[in-house]
Amino acid sequence: MLYVVGIGPGGLEMMTAEARAAIEAADVIVGYKTYTHLVKALVGDKPVIKTGMCKEIERCQVALEIAQSGQTVALISSGDAGIYGMAGLILEMVTKQTWHVEVKVVPGMTASIAAGAALGAPLMHDFCHISLSDLLTPWSVIAKRINAAAAADFVICFYNPRSRGREGHLRHAFELMSPYKAPDTPVGVVKEAGRRKETKWLTTLAAMDFERVDMRTMVIVGNQSTYVEQGLMITPRGYTL
Amino acid sequence: MLYVVGIGPGGLEMMTAEARAAIEAADVIVGYKTYTHLVKALVGDKPVIKTGMCKEIERCQVALEIAQSGQTVALISSGDAGIYGMAGLILEMVTKQTWHVEVKVVPGMTASIAAGAALGAPLMHDFCHISLSDLLTPWSVIAKRINAAAAADFVICFYNPRSRGREGHLRHAFELMSPYKAPDTPVGVVKEAGRRKETKWLTTLAAMDFERVDMRTMVIVGNQSTYVEQGLMITPRGYTL
Ligand SMILES: C[S@@+](CC[C@H](N)C(=O)[O-])C[C@H]1O[C@@H](n2cnc3c(N)ncnc32)[C@H](O)[C@@H]1O
Ligand SMILES: C[S@@+](CC[C@H](N)C(=O)[O-])C[C@H]1O[C@@H](n2cnc3c(N)ncnc32)[C@H](O)[C@@H]1O
Repeated sequence: MLYVVGIGPGGLEMMTAEARAAIEAADVIVGYKTYTHLVKALVGDKPVIKTGMCKEIERCQVALEIAQSGQTVALISSGDAGIYGMAGLILEMVTKQTWHVEVKVVPGMTASIAAGAALGAPLMHDFCHISLSDLLTPWSVIAKRINAAAAADFVICFYNPRSRGREGHLRHAFELMSPYKAPDTPVGVVKEAGRRKETKWLTTLAAMDFERVDMRTMVIVGNQSTYVEQGLMITPRGYTL
Repeated sequence: MLYVVGIGPGGLEMMTAEARAAIEAADVIVGYKTYTHLVKALVGDKPVIKTGMCKEIERCQVALEIAQSGQTVALISSGDAGIYGMAGLILEMVTKQTWHVEVKVVPGMTASIAAGAALGAPLMHDFCHISLSDLLTPWSVIAKRINAAAAADFVICFYNPRSRGREGHLRHAFELMSPYKAPDTPVGVVKEAGRRKETKWLTTLAAMDFERVDMRTMVIVGNQSTYVEQGLMITPRGYTL
């Protein structure tokens, strides 16, 4: 049995009861270092197989092999495993290759939701998730999506806003949005949402400081109606008060 | 103290520990009938104020009044309170009106994530949320967003796909997508995701049966690469296996 578990963006308080139960039921835990660390308290002295970043296929293979040998495995992703996480790759492997493993995807809260709650209520109207990682997606596709989302006035959540070798992507994304979104459009930034070291700040499309963003950061850009009041970023749904 | 709590889409197993703690800490629970029912087991014999649908402002006012009188209130939304839920309205009211209430938004897993996990891994690439309710948003804005999202090949999650007086909206949305998305684009439908009565099925853009969709349904339309294999809906991230 292989549970592909989304542990939520932060510590244990943002994990669902089902995710917790899957980790408790597992004989072996597999995951990227930072995430196995976040669930340490649940794991006890079970074997934990930590793998580095960018070793996704290898990590999935290890998890499938152990599960196929008869043990119960929890393969953990931060946030939701089905959102830029491990669920897709595992299901591709079990449907395209010959594994005899039962798989269950256990959903989790994704980072944009925790970041949204920390900022106020920026996601109250239609929004989209865009990953700025071009390791697996050509930049032209990413740019097309940024353009379309900005033109149609979506709130936009940027995942993977920055990482080594991709310093300019977020700045480029902001340039693409600027014909459609006003310079004073509110932008909320949350680093390590839901974790002990959470930090956050509010800025605007024009005043954005790209240097403060790292790979553990969520960047949420408002729509035309989004405003900031008393330090809260709010996208109104449209009620008349 | 007012906690605006996202209880997750289903029963207790999809609730976070933090949401559970907020409900347990509350003196009074306020919420729409169906949702208060889902957390009955946690509430014990605390007073529960149930309100009907479309009474959002009233519901928020009641919650704020009780909290202002000194009691701890949990105002509950299904899914995440910040996604077409109560968080935005509460924060609009406390920032624009004169309430003396401390508010904390407690995030929850939104319906699209639970539906995604039930279907497989359809949300592995960039996606957006679009609400088809035109009670507060003009249909022209909704149509523009559907158009843009389809043209830029987003996976699309439709919230509020159908309700009384809006029978034609989902069909109309599908018509708007059809110039951009192939007729055989996979569509996953999940009714009451995460609840005891959960039902789901897979279809395509061209074969969609709009009559089976009701207001407790999530409709997820794939992107160009989304495929169905062994009953699972999968949007590949782009790894080469
Ligand atoms: C490969 S994606 C994984 C997303 C994850 N599966 C989820 O659903 O949240 C990694 C990106 O998610 C975002 N992220 C994940 N956890 C975060 C957190 N606690 N705070 C802020 N951003 C986070 C960052 O943008 C990061 O670059
Ligand atoms: C007013 S919105 C509330 C969304 C909620 N705050 C959330 O984050 O999931 C109501 C819509 O959410 C969707 N929805 C909520 N719970 C659901 C569930 N358990 N299964 C399927 N769809 C659900 C349906 O599309 C419904 O019409």
